[in-house]
Amino acid sequence: MKKEYKIGDKATYSRHFHAEDVEVFSRISDDDNPIHLDEDFAAASVFGRRVVHGIFTVSMFSKIFGTIYPGNGGIYLSQNTKFFRPVYVGDHVTAEVELLDLHPEKRIGTFATKCFNAAGELVVDGEAKIKLP
Amino acid sequence: MKKEYKIGDKATYSRHFHAEDVEVFSRISDDDNPIHLDEDFAAASVFGRRVVHGIFTVSMFSKIFGTIYPGNGGIYLSQNTKFFRPVYVGDHVTAEVELLDLHPEKRIGTFATKCFNAAGELVVDGEAKIKLP
Repeated sequence: MKKEYKIGDKATYSRHFHAEDVEVFSRISDDDNPIHLDEDFAAASVFGRRVVHGIFTVSMFSKIFGTIYPGNGGIYLSQNTKFFRPVYVGDHVTAEVELLDLHPEKRIGTFATKCFNAAGELVVDGEAKIKLP
Repeated sequence: MKKEYKIGDKATYSRHFHAEDVEVFSRISDDDNPIHLDEDFAAASVFGRRVVHGIFTVSMFSKIFGTIYPGNGGIYLSQNTKFFRPVYVGDHVTAEVELLDLHPEKRIGTFATKCFNAAGELVVDGEAKIKLP
């Protein structure tokens, strides 16, 4: 079955960022900045609490594009992101992608990519291009 | 000691992307697209081999900014990335950031962010803005 793509199509994915997830991400990325790992350090920082690595938050778009929309067979061409607000360890975050534009011959989709925290505040904003299957 | 920032400053970081790292990234990001995990699926795909999640490659910049340059106390404001070539499971990758511009009052640094594979080919290109400590 050939998938139909329509401008305005949306897909979402929600998750918690548990302390253990952030510790594992620190290990595999070798980014052991204490703002992510050390409660006392984070408490004395401008953030006041441990924050999730920005790029770990961005992985929610990879999850959507790779497994939900378009899923299997898409190719990630680009991802632009602005980090508007911190995501704290323990936060529940919802990622949303929306198809803004579609190049029919090249089959390249341009998506708005946003993440919201549990209070509904925009934490990550950006745009991605995906070669559709 | 106050750190001095100069246009043209560079920092690099190199690593292997082992199969186990990619499997752990798939688990914590919940991105279990078989292109990253399934040898047979990947062999039949346009890539021919398992590829590393693009966002996992981008985490190399987070490693540099968070722990090397500027390190502790920097705040990630934005990261733009284009994925030029696939990074394959097992590849050795070198990430390089270069300070392109510095806003002295706002203390915002603009960096070129690039990753190269072991053959010296550009795999990821982009730009980041960091609020310097």
